[in-house]
Amino acid sequence: MLKIAVLGAGRIGQVHAANVAHHNDAQLVMVADPFIDNANALTALYGGTAVNNPLDAINHQDIDAVVICTPTDTHVELMLAAARAGKAVLCEKPVDLDIRKAIAAEKALGEHASRVMLGFNRRFDAGHSETYQRIRNGEIGDLHQVIITSRDPGLAPMNYLKHSGGIFRDMVIHDFDLARWILGEEPVEVFATGSRLFEPSLEALGDYDTVMVQLRTASGKQCQINCSRQAVYGYDQRLEVFGSNGMMLNDNQRETSVRRYGPQETEVRGPLLNFFMQRYTEAYRHEMDVFISAIRNGSTVPVTIHDGCQALKLADAAQLSADTHTVVTVD
Amino acid sequence: MLKIAVLGAGRIGQVHAANVAHHNDAQLVMVADPFIDNANALTALYGGTAVNNPLDAINHQDIDAVVICTPTDTHVELMLAAARAGKAVLCEKPVDLDIRKAIAAEKALGEHASRVMLGFNRRFDAGHSETYQRIRNGEIGDLHQVIITSRDPGLAPMNYLKHSGGIFRDMVIHDFDLARWILGEEPVEVFATGSRLFEPSLEALGDYDTVMVQLRTASGKQCQINCSRQAVYGYDQRLEVFGSNGMMLNDNQRETSVRRYGPQETEVRGPLLNFFMQRYTEAYRHEMDVFISAIRNGSTVPVTIHDGCQALKLADAAQLSADTHTVVTVD
Amino acid sequence: MLKIAVLGAGRIGQVHAANVAHHNDAQLVMVADPFIDNANALTALYGGTAVNNPLDAINHQDIDAVVICTPTDTHVELMLAAARAGKAVLCEKPVDLDIRKAIAAEKALGEHASRVMLGFNRRFDAGHSETYQRIRNGEIGDLHQVIITSRDPGLAPMNYLKHSGGIFRDMVIHDFDLARWILGEEPVEVFATGSRLFEPSLEALGDYDTVMVQLRTASGKQCQINCSRQAVYGYDQRLEVFGSNGMMLNDNQRETSVRRYGPQETEVRGPLLNFFMQRYTEAYRHEMDVFISAIRNGSTVPVTIHDGCQALKLADAAQLSADTHTVVTVD
Amino acid sequence: MLKIAVLGAGRIGQVHAANVAHHNDAQLVMVADPFIDNANALTALYGGTAVNNPLDAINHQDIDAVVICTPTDTHVELMLAAARAGKAVLCEKPVDLDIRKAIAAEKALGEHASRVMLGFNRRFDAGHSETYQRIRNGEIGDLHQVIITSRDPGLAPMNYLKHSGGIFRDMVIHDFDLARWILGEEPVEVFATGSRLFEPSLEALGDYDTVMVQLRTASGKQCQINCSRQAVYGYDQRLEVFGSNGMMLNDNQRETSVRRYGPQETEVRGPLLNFFMQRYTEAYRHEMDVFISAIRNGSTVPVTIHDGCQALKLADAAQLSADTHTVVTVD
Repeated sequence: MLKIAVLGAGRIGQVHAANVAHHNDAQLVMVADPFIDNANALTALYGGTAVNNPLDAINHQDIDAVVICTPTDTHVELMLAAARAGKAVLCEKPVDLDIRKAIAAEKALGEHASRVMLGFNRRFDAGHSETYQRIRNGEIGDLHQVIITSRDPGLAPMNYLKHSGGIFRDMVIHDFDLARWILGEEPVEVFATGSRLFEPSLEALGDYDTVMVQLRTASGKQCQINCSRQAVYGYDQRLEVFGSNGMMLNDNQRETSVRRYGPQETEVRGPLLNFFMQRYTEAYRHEMDVFISAIRNGSTVPVTIHDGCQALKLADAAQLSADTHTVVTVD
Repeated sequence: MLKIAVLGAGRIGQVHAANVAHHNDAQLVMVADPFIDNANALTALYGGTAVNNPLDAINHQDIDAVVICTPTDTHVELMLAAARAGKAVLCEKPVDLDIRKAIAAEKALGEHASRVMLGFNRRFDAGHSETYQRIRNGEIGDLHQVIITSRDPGLAPMNYLKHSGGIFRDMVIHDFDLARWILGEEPVEVFATGSRLFEPSLEALGDYDTVMVQLRTASGKQCQINCSRQAVYGYDQRLEVFGSNGMMLNDNQRETSVRRYGPQETEVRGPLLNFFMQRYTEAYRHEMDVFISAIRNGSTVPVTIHDGCQALKLADAAQLSADTHTVVTVD
Repeated sequence: MLKIAVLGAGRIGQVHAANVAHHNDAQLVMVADPFIDNANALTALYGGTAVNNPLDAINHQDIDAVVICTPTDTHVELMLAAARAGKAVLCEKPVDLDIRKAIAAEKALGEHASRVMLGFNRRFDAGHSETYQRIRNGEIGDLHQVIITSRDPGLAPMNYLKHSGGIFRDMVIHDFDLARWILGEEPVEVFATGSRLFEPSLEALGDYDTVMVQLRTASGKQCQINCSRQAVYGYDQRLEVFGSNGMMLNDNQRETSVRRYGPQETEVRGPLLNFFMQRYTEAYRHEMDVFISAIRNGSTVPVTIHDGCQALKLADAAQLSADTHTVVTVD
Repeated sequence: MLKIAVLGAGRIGQVHAANVAHHNDAQLVMVADPFIDNANALTALYGGTAVNNPLDAINHQDIDAVVICTPTDTHVELMLAAARAGKAVLCEKPVDLDIRKAIAAEKALGEHASRVMLGFNRRFDAGHSETYQRIRNGEIGDLHQVIITSRDPGLAPMNYLKHSGGIFRDMVIHDFDLARWILGEEPVEVFATGSRLFEPSLEALGDYDTVMVQLRTASGKQCQINCSRQAVYGYDQRLEVFGSNGMMLNDNQRETSVRRYGPQETEVRGPLLNFFMQRYTEAYRHEMDVFISAIRNGSTVPVTIHDGCQALKLADAAQLSADTHTVVTVD
């Protein structure tokens, strides 16, 4: 049994705590949150001890691994402290909003990096994962183009947007990671277009509500990402991969397979899975499972801080590109 | 060039006249209709001579073939006259509403039957036809079950219903022919259920608005037909064939492939092709093409008066079954 | 917390034990199975005590409810014993293979019946349940026709088939319950066709591998069920409901939404959820949730032994109809 | 009756000739082709006179309109000659491969331009056209993003590619026109990526086999186009339009609606309509109809030489962008 502490008892911490608690090979032994009531609520449900200082968990001898779900600006500090204390780490994305700090953290981690996993949830989605495997198995021949659709169901609260780092770093960063993973090569050229089409107040933040990004790898593979902070029909998450011998599509998912046929409109389908908590419920479970397996088996985690840094570099490049209307080269 | 006369310039006569006129190997030389204005309207568009007596066409030496689109109770008489005059015949279904008259006609035709084709349009639908071919090619192994959905978009006028012979003879007869064709065996057992669920006035006609039929062949193959005189979402025409190695579905067709996603409902598709004139437009073209080819090549037409009689027997059996709540055996 | 014992630690007992163990308002306190190793395996995973005699659980004072997952011929005895001991009961279908014994049990239960729930899992499927609700809310107007497709992915072991009671009682009984529930009226007329199209050895058992059933209610609502013991493409579970103002379809479900497009065939979708354990995983969870809620709230369970008896009557009628080629009236 | 001459009896001239011949308000009176056999083949089928010099048609007093289907480098000359001779013109795209020559032609046409229509076939596709109308009717609110997928089923012959002007001018030009039309605004910024991923010999031509383009309008609307010269699964033509109140998709079309379910793969759909001659058959018919109507009614044609010039400017900008890895501004 891997003994795990969850640091941060907010929305995503709750998801991870439940997944740890229900896992056959792991045990939730501690939950840390400065708002101790939040921590208590989780330990009441799933067992374990509530503490308010994450370092209490990191330094506790009975703990094998920590899941970092705290605010972004604490990720690097906690990750390093945990790694140095010999703990395995599953850390929510992003590493940090500052690429220099993220790269420094990668360097500082050194050999510990093999036990520090970044939580890019989409890699663990059943459909994305199946697509990845089948592409690698050669089902569509050589990969030529990737198209990613990524639209949130609604604008996040302004309070969040003020500190999020902007759409490229808070939202498209997932798509950058997905693109890198599926492409199997690093993008070397980034062009991004950013617009404020429905939320003019984002101008004061230097942010955008609607963006498109085009990427190219050194060998000429191509990728387009389209992204909006608000799709009225729900959380739109699609992936298309085109190659020399075919194409694969991973489409949206719905709550049920029911269709209605009526006098005005025929074949009406129901709502999409509404947001990432629903759409990626199973992905979070699978992510935790993969983390626990890797740590128990002593194998390197499949998503590392290096992946976190590379995705952040692309986000920075996209921000610069959109702001300056130029093509940005990524080294 | 096959020289063709169309007998009857009503709705379906207009379809056939246009298809003859546009066919590369045929010529529309005459249109007969007692309402000479109707005939004139067609010859104005497509050429040829308008006459008011169908026998003028049947007996004209320059005519190779006639298409019978006149009222049902004239079908047998005109078919026999044309066949005896050496003309090839394409006759709209049904042969007659009276099975004895239909069987007598089959007998009277004798060897002429190979040049008298019955117009069961569905056999010439691209999807049904593809399904038939692929089943015969063994794509689903041995055939076990057939399910036919057949719903009209709205109730026919009461004036039509009074003389139509009832739902089994005016509507389900198409499905009986489709069932026989796809099954590749004669049904020997018929059970039908008839209800009046939205049009109580049909009781006076001994007719139903909603029916289901279950068929069995001698070897145990099974078929279900569901049928309504009114589907508010349009003309619902589906075919499912299930076998030992798979299943094939022929689904409805829409005007375009456009889908809309909106705030209330996601993935809304547009209307079905509205009724048989739209749904089976290409089927009528293909039917005429097959007829013209068969006659020009001297081969037997692929749908004969025998098929017309067998479908009518099933319709009669279904009517009896529904009226008496008993299983009816077909010899 | 509702304290629950699971009687029978076989395949379906394992499902129910896990769902009880993970439920926030219930506790798995006992598992009974004459093969004590099976019971031990479950209590090792989920806690509780393993016993080999179900009556030990039924008579234990700390137990509020039992889930009966034992062989069919013990259902009635255990159900009555548990009810008389004041326990709530969730009993797997069927009540019994003998309708007289089932009806006698219904009578014997008397007022206890409100706390004895039958495990017809399909009623708790998200899609079927949504369909039911929306039909009752009037979305398709008056209900006219129901079409149920129910095909297993492969033939059950001969050992099972010898004692299953035949296809109508072991398999179509689910569809009879679904039909009754969706129709909202009792079928009064049953016609069934049974064939042996791929497994001739079923003749010795008086059983069929392929059946179709047609039902009618007193008010003329109609239902068709098509059923096969073997669909090579997987577990085919579809529901279509047609009414005066539209239609609703609940389609099959797949593991993922991935589609592949290749040189030979375009748009290939992956496998269906393979069998009832996958297809109805969530339904079993929801069923347990509904059971626990009803018992905790003191409300009548939503599926009673009466439903079990009525479905069995329809199965008996279908068997008789298929065996005799006659229409059978159900009182 | 509009009297029409078709100039050029090649593949696309044959399509237009048939559509003229079958149109109720038009008559095919002349076909011009230097290979007189080609012209004769068409007049034999549809009537009219065959000539080998297109100027014979342009200068013939009995001709109201000409359809220009000759090689690209003759378009401007014939268009101007016909316009000056008082003929209405339907000219295949592109105006010319040289934007200066195209702009000069636009200027030279002057007021004649209202009777000179450019043959951008996609605007007349039923699905694209429905999408356009419904967007303009406000069904998706304000338009934010357009995504166009445009992949040919296979590489064109090298002989064609040597003179085609490159992928942006021979193929993506259709998508540029579609983008302008749907966006309802001129793109002002173009970024394109070009790769040679499967046909290295295109390097000698300065051409690409796989491209992506990103466009922005002055108001910030965004568009992405993805394009390949070879999709093994067929002619892939999709349009997605995303806005403040929803999304519309126009999907590919298939020959039939048949789906097969088998032991290895479930739900296999058949081939896409193979190439533009099949996919846009109806679009060509509709395009001719619109042209004939506009000329007969004296209204301005809906697609003008200006549209041809603007699409060509975007193609030029894309070529420059891809060649230089820079963002190109369009004035």
